[in-house]
Amino acid sequence: MPTKIITLTTDFGLKDPYVAEMKAVILSISPKTKIVDITHKIEKFNIRMGAYTLAAAYPYFPKGTIHVAVIDPGVGTKRKAILVQTKNAHFIGPDNGVLALAGKSQGIEHIYGIENLNFMLPKISYTFHGRDIFAPAAAYLANGASPSEFGPEIPEIVTPKHAKITKRRHTLTGEIIHIDGFGNIITNLREKDCELMGIKKTVKLKLKDTRLKLKLCKAYSEVKARQPLAIIGSHNFLEISINQGDAAENFQTRVGDKVTLYYI
Amino acid sequence: MPTKIITLTTDFGLKDPYVAEMKAVILSISPKTKIVDITHKIEKFNIRMGAYTLAAAYPYFPKGTIHVAVIDPGVGTKRKAILVQTKNAHFIGPDNGVLALAGKSQGIEHIYGIENLNFMLPKISYTFHGRDIFAPAAAYLANGASPSEFGPEIPEIVTPKHAKITKRRHTLTGEIIHIDGFGNIITNLREKDCELMGIKKTVKLKLKDTRLKLKLCKAYSEVKARQPLAIIGSHNFLEISINQGDAAENFQTRVGDKVTLYYI
Amino acid sequence: MPTKIITLTTDFGLKDPYVAEMKAVILSISPKTKIVDITHKIEKFNIRMGAYTLAAAYPYFPKGTIHVAVIDPGVGTKRKAILVQTKNAHFIGPDNGVLALAGKSQGIEHIYGIENLNFMLPKISYTFHGRDIFAPAAAYLANGASPSEFGPEIPEIVTPKHAKITKRRHTLTGEIIHIDGFGNIITNLREKDCELMGIKKTVKLKLKDTRLKLKLCKAYSEVKARQPLAIIGSHNFLEISINQGDAAENFQTRVGDKVTLYYI
Repeated sequence: MPTKIITLTTDFGLKDPYVAEMKAVILSISPKTKIVDITHKIEKFNIRMGAYTLAAAYPYFPKGTIHVAVIDPGVGTKRKAILVQTKNAHFIGPDNGVLALAGKSQGIEHIYGIENLNFMLPKISYTFHGRDIFAPAAAYLANGASPSEFGPEIPEIVTPKHAKITKRRHTLTGEIIHIDGFGNIITNLREKDCELMGIKKTVKLKLKDTRLKLKLCKAYSEVKARQPLAIIGSHNFLEISINQGDAAENFQTRVGDKVTLYYI
Repeated sequence: MPTKIITLTTDFGLKDPYVAEMKAVILSISPKTKIVDITHKIEKFNIRMGAYTLAAAYPYFPKGTIHVAVIDPGVGTKRKAILVQTKNAHFIGPDNGVLALAGKSQGIEHIYGIENLNFMLPKISYTFHGRDIFAPAAAYLANGASPSEFGPEIPEIVTPKHAKITKRRHTLTGEIIHIDGFGNIITNLREKDCELMGIKKTVKLKLKDTRLKLKLCKAYSEVKARQPLAIIGSHNFLEISINQGDAAENFQTRVGDKVTLYYI
Repeated sequence: MPTKIITLTTDFGLKDPYVAEMKAVILSISPKTKIVDITHKIEKFNIRMGAYTLAAAYPYFPKGTIHVAVIDPGVGTKRKAILVQTKNAHFIGPDNGVLALAGKSQGIEHIYGIENLNFMLPKISYTFHGRDIFAPAAAYLANGASPSEFGPEIPEIVTPKHAKITKRRHTLTGEIIHIDGFGNIITNLREKDCELMGIKKTVKLKLKDTRLKLKLCKAYSEVKARQPLAIIGSHNFLEISINQGDAAENFQTRVGDKVTLYYI
């Protein structure tokens, strides 16, 4: 059996012992597993940012990878713990939407509640299911447990409100779904949305309250340093960037702000 | 022989090459070892925070794990380098208290000075014993060297001033030992201390200068968002939290502040 | 064949999915490779800081290690992607200077352009060659591909302006090449430069506009807490530090500031 990979996506940060405790639990149960951090710097309780990040990263992992995501403001409540099976991967975490984007984009085959106490730590805290439930579930799954052993099949996953795209006569309005560490503004508008609006070399858009006419570039350096541009980013979304600068700071935008494309 | 795990706990941060140099040294000597970061974001020179973090994380690692902790304000002085052997683990670091909490909580069997030059890098800097002494010691130990080969047995470990708990007629006073990335305030008062004070559903306490009467919850969400609560956290200490908020910021507290429980 | 190590040095930060995507690509192609982070917190687009950090860390890794460095402000332009072969290691990244310090310090044997599409992802974005070109190149190299298969040999590597050292009659002027997370000021002046200036126990220097006379210490603790000192650091450069304090903040210095040594 090849070495299994378990990925971790959390809002725990890197200062506290929490991430290491999850890894310790995984390696105690499944010593040969490779653990890869996706990120632990999701904003606290920001389920949508967790869902976006997991959905962006998971397609690059090998078939059979197990993804654990713990952004869990409802820990200790009756929100379910779930295991989502798709064609190529498994996703483990709370049923609050954090797994939904990634799962659905690949096609969900089965959803199971995680209820089997044999796949949890002996003592379960009320505040840290990442360590006590999700990490051991991933490790036992890596060891070969069958998904259906974890608990009853569940018909439906909780789905976060997706960023909607609104079509009007001459406009298409979406929103900012992520701002990365470079200050790149990532929208939920895709390449095909741009084509629909007749966009080829220039993008006319309103970003929050600012009207912009930007060059649609293939590389940041097609404009001068500190100049804004539009680009189809590495995940196929329209991004607004500043060459060697911070677009989000410059335009004073944040996740959730509206972005409107105008027909060219 | 199963793959050994070496954990790292330091105040080096993640910007500089220091952590990678330690890993490079370990993997040069012991290529099959798995290295797990506990954290590298201990506050600079904060031995107590390092000791708390190591003591919180190590119990979850498999038997035989080697823990290296380098919070080392006295590097280059005559403070000793030590190897602490307990029933289930080994701890390596400077003899300044950083290993004491974890070692003692598991029962120290032997303490050895690290003096054998065969287990160090050929050239030893005055400022970076993490790379030149502690990392190679851990790697040679993982390779099967016997603890007693590293140097002479030492009778006593340097122990940091523990957070004391003071019992008066109707009160129990402890202090804040850690504030985590969520702003949860972690005290040194344990579940049994709360029981001793007759605490069941409500906690009456003074946090620094603020008197509070808090619900003792099992889950954060038993109170409304932004409301404070008390909870027995995932390491069995009494914590003061705010549901989906930052308790430490709200109450303007820091590590070392007093926390007094009142008899209910 | 022993397990190969691939190291990563980037300015991507740890919040976004970018680093995980690189690791996912590497492990998809070369599942047994060990990946070690050098750092992902190089300042955005700071090629020189990346070059310094890689040059500091790489000598400690085992022979045969493959180092990937992606600080890449020119991504999507015609800057080359290169593979640098030295006696003990391979370096992969953009040809903008980030590999030059490390490569030259070990002696460059060959430089190859990375042009062979068989060693890239099927779809190459304009903005993320770390994932689409550099990560797969490293993974195929780890799998045993020969460097000359990647592309044509290139005679010359782009070299960043090195920090120069200027010798005058009684002075030697260099500059600050790095400020670490402790606030230690790392200069480009080496131990032998200090000897040349007759320095033994005391260093007379001008740091930006501040004249200082500092004890040349072997350990930080040779001066009192909060006092400044000079020290030959763990990479053999002259450093100005404050015992248990932040020298860079105290002296208001930054990378690039001049440092002048006076003859004793």
